[in-house]
Amino acid sequence: MSDNIYQNLEQLGGATVLPDDPKTAILESVQNPQADVDYVVRFTAPEFTSLCPMTAQPDFAHLVIDYIPDQLLVESKSLKLFLGAFRNHGAFHEDCTVSIARRLIDEINPKWLRIGGYWYPRGGIPIDVFYAFGEVPKGVWLPEQGVAGYRGRG
Amino acid sequence: MSDNIYQNLEQLGGATVLPDDPKTAILESVQNPQADVDYVVRFTAPEFTSLCPMTAQPDFAHLVIDYIPDQLLVESKSLKLFLGAFRNHGAFHEDCTVSIARRLIDEINPKWLRIGGYWYPRGGIPIDVFYAFGEVPKGVWLPEQGVAGYRGRG
Amino acid sequence: MSDNIYQNLEQLGGATVLPDDPKTAILESVQNPQADVDYVVRFTAPEFTSLCPMTAQPDFAHLVIDYIPDQLLVESKSLKLFLGAFRNHGAFHEDCTVSIARRLIDEINPKWLRIGGYWYPRGGIPIDVFYAFGEVPKGVWLPEQGVAGYRGRG
Amino acid sequence: MSDNIYQNLEQLGGATVLPDDPKTAILESVQNPQADVDYVVRFTAPEFTSLCPMTAQPDFAHLVIDYIPDQLLVESKSLKLFLGAFRNHGAFHEDCTVSIARRLIDEINPKWLRIGGYWYPRGGIPIDVFYAFGEVPKGVWLPEQGVAGYRGRG
Amino acid sequence: MSDNIYQNLEQLGGATVLPDDPKTAILESVQNPQADVDYVVRFTAPEFTSLCPMTAQPDFAHLVIDYIPDQLLVESKSLKLFLGAFRNHGAFHEDCTVSIARRLIDEINPKWLRIGGYWYPRGGIPIDVFYAFGEVPKGVWLPEQGVAGYRGRG
Amino acid sequence: MSDNIYQNLEQLGGATVLPDDPKTAILESVQNPQADVDYVVRFTAPEFTSLCPMTAQPDFAHLVIDYIPDQLLVESKSLKLFLGAFRNHGAFHEDCTVSIARRLIDEINPKWLRIGGYWYPRGGIPIDVFYAFGEVPKGVWLPEQGVAGYRGRG
Amino acid sequence: MSDNIYQNLEQLGGATVLPDDPKTAILESVQNPQADVDYVVRFTAPEFTSLCPMTAQPDFAHLVIDYIPDQLLVESKSLKLFLGAFRNHGAFHEDCTVSIARRLIDEINPKWLRIGGYWYPRGGIPIDVFYAFGEVPKGVWLPEQGVAGYRGRG
Amino acid sequence: MSDNIYQNLEQLGGATVLPDDPKTAILESVQNPQADVDYVVRFTAPEFTSLCPMTAQPDFAHLVIDYIPDQLLVESKSLKLFLGAFRNHGAFHEDCTVSIARRLIDEINPKWLRIGGYWYPRGGIPIDVFYAFGEVPKGVWLPEQGVAGYRGRG
Amino acid sequence: MSDNIYQNLEQLGGATVLPDDPKTAILESVQNPQADVDYVVRFTAPEFTSLCPMTAQPDFAHLVIDYIPDQLLVESKSLKLFLGAFRNHGAFHEDCTVSIARRLIDEINPKWLRIGGYWYPRGGIPIDVFYAFGEVPKGVWLPEQGVAGYRGRG
Amino acid sequence: MSDNIYQNLEQLGGATVLPDDPKTAILESVQNPQADVDYVVRFTAPEFTSLCPMTAQPDFAHLVIDYIPDQLLVESKSLKLFLGAFRNHGAFHEDCTVSIARRLIDEINPKWLRIGGYWYPRGGIPIDVFYAFGEVPKGVWLPEQGVAGYRGRG
Ligand SMILES: [Ca+2]
Ligand SMILES: [Ca+2]
Ligand SMILES: [Ca+2]
Ligand SMILES: [Ca+2]
Ligand SMILES: [Ca+2]
Ligand SMILES: [Ca+2]
Ligand SMILES: [Ca+2]
Ligand SMILES: [Ca+2]
Ligand SMILES: [Ca+2]
Ligand SMILES: [Ca+2]
Ligand SMILES: [Ca+2]
Ligand SMILES: [Ca+2]
Ligand SMILES: [Ca+2]
Ligand SMILES: [Ca+2]
Ligand SMILES: [Ca+2]
Ligand SMILES: [Ca+2]
Repeated sequence: MSDNIYQNLEQLGGATVLPDDPKTAILESVQNPQADVDYVVRFTAPEFTSLCPMTAQPDFAHLVIDYIPDQLLVESKSLKLFLGAFRNHGAFHEDCTVSIARRLIDEINPKWLRIGGYWYPRGGIPIDVFYAFGEVPKGVWLPEQGVAGYRGRG
Repeated sequence: MSDNIYQNLEQLGGATVLPDDPKTAILESVQNPQADVDYVVRFTAPEFTSLCPMTAQPDFAHLVIDYIPDQLLVESKSLKLFLGAFRNHGAFHEDCTVSIARRLIDEINPKWLRIGGYWYPRGGIPIDVFYAFGEVPKGVWLPEQGVAGYRGRG
Repeated sequence: MSDNIYQNLEQLGGATVLPDDPKTAILESVQNPQADVDYVVRFTAPEFTSLCPMTAQPDFAHLVIDYIPDQLLVESKSLKLFLGAFRNHGAFHEDCTVSIARRLIDEINPKWLRIGGYWYPRGGIPIDVFYAFGEVPKGVWLPEQGVAGYRGRG
Repeated sequence: MSDNIYQNLEQLGGATVLPDDPKTAILESVQNPQADVDYVVRFTAPEFTSLCPMTAQPDFAHLVIDYIPDQLLVESKSLKLFLGAFRNHGAFHEDCTVSIARRLIDEINPKWLRIGGYWYPRGGIPIDVFYAFGEVPKGVWLPEQGVAGYRGRG
Repeated sequence: MSDNIYQNLEQLGGATVLPDDPKTAILESVQNPQADVDYVVRFTAPEFTSLCPMTAQPDFAHLVIDYIPDQLLVESKSLKLFLGAFRNHGAFHEDCTVSIARRLIDEINPKWLRIGGYWYPRGGIPIDVFYAFGEVPKGVWLPEQGVAGYRGRG
Repeated sequence: MSDNIYQNLEQLGGATVLPDDPKTAILESVQNPQADVDYVVRFTAPEFTSLCPMTAQPDFAHLVIDYIPDQLLVESKSLKLFLGAFRNHGAFHEDCTVSIARRLIDEINPKWLRIGGYWYPRGGIPIDVFYAFGEVPKGVWLPEQGVAGYRGRG
Repeated sequence: MSDNIYQNLEQLGGATVLPDDPKTAILESVQNPQADVDYVVRFTAPEFTSLCPMTAQPDFAHLVIDYIPDQLLVESKSLKLFLGAFRNHGAFHEDCTVSIARRLIDEINPKWLRIGGYWYPRGGIPIDVFYAFGEVPKGVWLPEQGVAGYRGRG
Repeated sequence: MSDNIYQNLEQLGGATVLPDDPKTAILESVQNPQADVDYVVRFTAPEFTSLCPMTAQPDFAHLVIDYIPDQLLVESKSLKLFLGAFRNHGAFHEDCTVSIARRLIDEINPKWLRIGGYWYPRGGIPIDVFYAFGEVPKGVWLPEQGVAGYRGRG
Repeated sequence: MSDNIYQNLEQLGGATVLPDDPKTAILESVQNPQADVDYVVRFTAPEFTSLCPMTAQPDFAHLVIDYIPDQLLVESKSLKLFLGAFRNHGAFHEDCTVSIARRLIDEINPKWLRIGGYWYPRGGIPIDVFYAFGEVPKGVWLPEQGVAGYRGRG
Repeated sequence: MSDNIYQNLEQLGGATVLPDDPKTAILESVQNPQADVDYVVRFTAPEFTSLCPMTAQPDFAHLVIDYIPDQLLVESKSLKLFLGAFRNHGAFHEDCTVSIARRLIDEINPKWLRIGGYWYPRGGIPIDVFYAFGEVPKGVWLPEQGVAGYRGRG
């Protein structure tokens, strides 16, 4: 297998502070150790939270991010800190979900990436947002995210 | 088996109009055809809706009612109309759930009765209300209602 | 183990005709091969159907019957024919469910018996009926029936 | 991220009254903050209710709406009020479901839109309605709605 | 929305008798109120029952019917009566399932139709039958029926 | 039913700010409108978040609170704000869960109260905390919380 | 519907003995009563068992067989006896699963057939085998088998 | 922890042959390594099969056995061989299930033991058998077996 | 709330090495911050693995530990290391499960403790072990562990 | 069926030792007994464990491997030993998952192969890895792996 691709990271292992703004959060990347083949990486983040820009009340979402790396992988601890940086910042559901994807695309330049944002209901009607970027290379296997729909009660 | 216990009912079979107030809705009853033994009857009403008395916005609930009849059974069509009468009336969750039970108790004088009100979330934190009246006679079998808890998303 | 307790049965193995009335259906029994201990037998009948005595339209139910035998076991093929005899006969939900139990009690005189009748919805509000007869002997193990509640859609 | 796209809305935040007719209900829209990419927005409305035009009895449905915005997003509070306006109006299942979609298409002119209407059973046989409008742009990711089928009891 | 498409029906609302033969059962239709677009209608009938032509014992099935209407919709009460007409008639599983579809095709001439017949097990190995007629028009959305496979016990 | 028990509340309806400390958050109460009977109220809060006091990283929990009111009910919007006040404060799992219960007990003096804290895993081994206060009055019905255990993957 | 296609069968109805070798088991067929259309028949056999050829210990599998008949249908009782003939014979998982399909193909010459063999774990790592023969005719509807993956414990 | 309690076993590790009669199958036991405390051991055997004594057709069951050991534990490989010995022997459901328990009681003399036999359906109505022996010592924890009920199709 | 009860720990936060023997692994404890009330703490460890002492092959289990603390809480990171110390050591299922409980009892002297060990199958018949120590104080709330039974395939 | 394809294996049946390095573990193969047709073999390994190369702490994964054999099948016991060889070796999630697939491809030269690695969460955000090699031949049936997504708690 490959060399230690994590040796130059700044945030992994050391003490870390939750960044207070997504824009200033550092998304680190590592060399793709299997860059000669196409494969999919899925991150599931059931703990996403931001604030409603209209009311400053907390919003919550279950996020699932899939991507096909080119030369770089997302370093998962920095991803966690980046997502945590939304904790005290305002964000609309549609805009926020798509923006997270675009920031990741900027940082790691993947062959393909998608995000599913499954937001907790406010007012009885939850919003889900599904965004995909790029083209899936031929032969790549891409399972459904399979997150259950909202069903109210009963 | 028993004679036709439904022969004197007014609402069953004929044309019916949804009553516009729970207080004036008629809850009909029929003779318990097996009144010499104790058993439990469960009604499941996944379609309950009322209005919030503060905002006049619709509220929804999944209701489950269990009772042990004495001399009378609830006639199910009149129960449906009674529950339908909440459609355009204001009702707080705790108060509404317990009140439905008390009205039924008044009408059919059961040995025991309980109601579970599983309300759809407003503001992220749903309320469930559980009320029981009377004492379960010895030897009666009473299964759990088993309605799933609220789980948000993911 | 025990001798062949089924050797005197009339309906098992031969050609059978669905009886056209529950009252005339023959419920056969066999000697309890383990009569010196207490245990529970459960029959699950997801295919019960009768007619509504008011409208002659079909009704359906999922039935679960538990009992603790004394000297006799219910022979399962005759039970199937007995339940099948309701196919073209009228029966109210509460009355029908309890009556099935009482007929079984008459035939096999069990130490204890219960029935759960889980009726398909008519008009949006299904009825479940739970009836138990007798006293559970000390030390007997009696699992819940665990039939899922009705949940509408979604 | 984008500017506050919600600043000109009339219904958001202020006091609102449930409109008494879907035709007069106001469906508001906001500028799509990510209009340079294609993505899917899903609304799940498990609390839809209307009246049967033949009998005036309540009907219930679980609705799921998916769309790919062009220049406009549906404002979710006005969607909630629009759906709430069916509360006391008559609507047939097939017609009602497709009509909701067409009204939305008129208002926001999406690239693509679909609706799934999962109606609660009346008479034992529920109706589901599935309608899609437009063509899904290449590369868009569109998960299944995944609403469970109706299963009766047991 | 559309005019009352149900005004000329014979069976809806009046007293009805379960027909005693599928061949003589009347399948009524109504004008498609949204005939200028393509959409799918799904009926779920978890209560189908017929008799085995070899043994005259009851058979049961969970049926799901999907179709894309052209000029006509199936009227749901007449569908219920048509399916109920199998109650005391013999039918083999494969033949019966396909025949129901063909009768519907004859009556309403849909653009496309399919049926899934999920039969209860006899002898430990249940049979499912899947039949589709016609071609799905481009752009129509057609969800899976998603009925769970048979799993025996445990 | 009862008078409007919510008329003197300060936070309901008006603009609210998330309090920045649980200690200073105001938990409002309302008169129990059904104080002459015993019943259970359940709040389900799937969106609880606090910070780890050792690392300042976010923690998450699914909380379920059950209580039997005496003279007072918890006002649900103030409960939401109280729980939201943990958003940027440090709290250990066992301590935090029990403390929330004790604060509620102080404020509304219930006949009985319990809390289930189902914490998201950190390091592979999640912690659940279950605390109950007081004695359940005779005859009260108290369903299980029924939150699924953690199961890892697969 | 069609004539009785089962009239010439040898094993149906009479006394049958479990054959002691799959090779000598008789797989009977009947005329396809709907041979002018294409449809799928699914058999689910959750009770398959054979012996390990290396150790003679029992193996178990859940089998699902789908096929599109041409002129012949598999007679289901003979299928059951054929599968039962593996009870005391050795068979490797991959080989056995594919062989069952090939025997069926030989006997009924279907337009298309597939088998899913879901074997119980031995040594912690279960094997599933998926084999399909032929080409699915245009327009045929073929649902997924949807058998749950193995998940160990927890 | 304890010494190797398995060192004197005959069947563990060596070549084994499936015994051809439950009566002659050897049930081995080992010393209880924690005999100074009370605890429960559960075996789950989803692969039980026997023959019907009337028809010689295969029967299948999912068995769950719980016991509280006294001085001896059941050795699990010999249990597997004992259960496998029913493979070609006739056994009625009620009798067979209770007999397995009694044989185990004879061999290891437990403080308490129970068996749940969940039989696959024959004729549409499956039988479950629940038998318990002895008295559960005070303070022992005994979870439900939680095997799902039979639900037919849909 | 309480002071930082974790300030004297040795393993939390610093670099840690998986201990190579359960006997030498250090189980740390912290002062119970709510020692004046009774409550339950549940640890769920779905990642337990040890070696079979007979064959040196890996075994796996899903463990759930519940306890009612007296003066001490288990520190969760040291619990993780203690459980990890079984990774390369031999342990029989019954013995291992009970031993883990007894070690915990020795270290923190709880009012009550129980462990459920849900072992992955070897040879088709998994073993579960349930052990409880002590007496549950009056009024404590103790939910079921609710781990699903093993079900084989299908 | 085919001859005994396992007769030349070294590890099957004899005593085996867990190899201490994946690189030196021997992956054995057997002749494909059905090499003239295309089919899929699925291995499900819910018990995979390795060490984190950064911290030496244990990692866990649920692995599912699908392949279409050409001339060779993977021998399942050697696969188990190969996967077990990761037990005390360091491996990053993305790299490890893809490497396992590549080693298998090297050994058996399949027509097509894929692996799904479903890793247990560390830090709240689990990683899944999906890799496929080769081209699926026309007409091959390839079911989804269907492993549930991670959902946190509640
Ligand atoms: Ca798909
Ligand atoms: Ca509901
Ligand atoms: Ca209970
Ligand atoms: Ca969640
Ligand atoms: Ca229980
Ligand atoms: Ca619903
Ligand atoms: Ca059913
Ligand atoms: Ca699909
Ligand atoms: Ca099973
Ligand atoms: Ca797992
Ligand atoms: Ca597990
Ligand atoms: Ca069904
Ligand atoms: Ca319980
Ligand atoms: Ca099975
Ligand atoms: Ca698919
Ligand atoms: Ca949650």
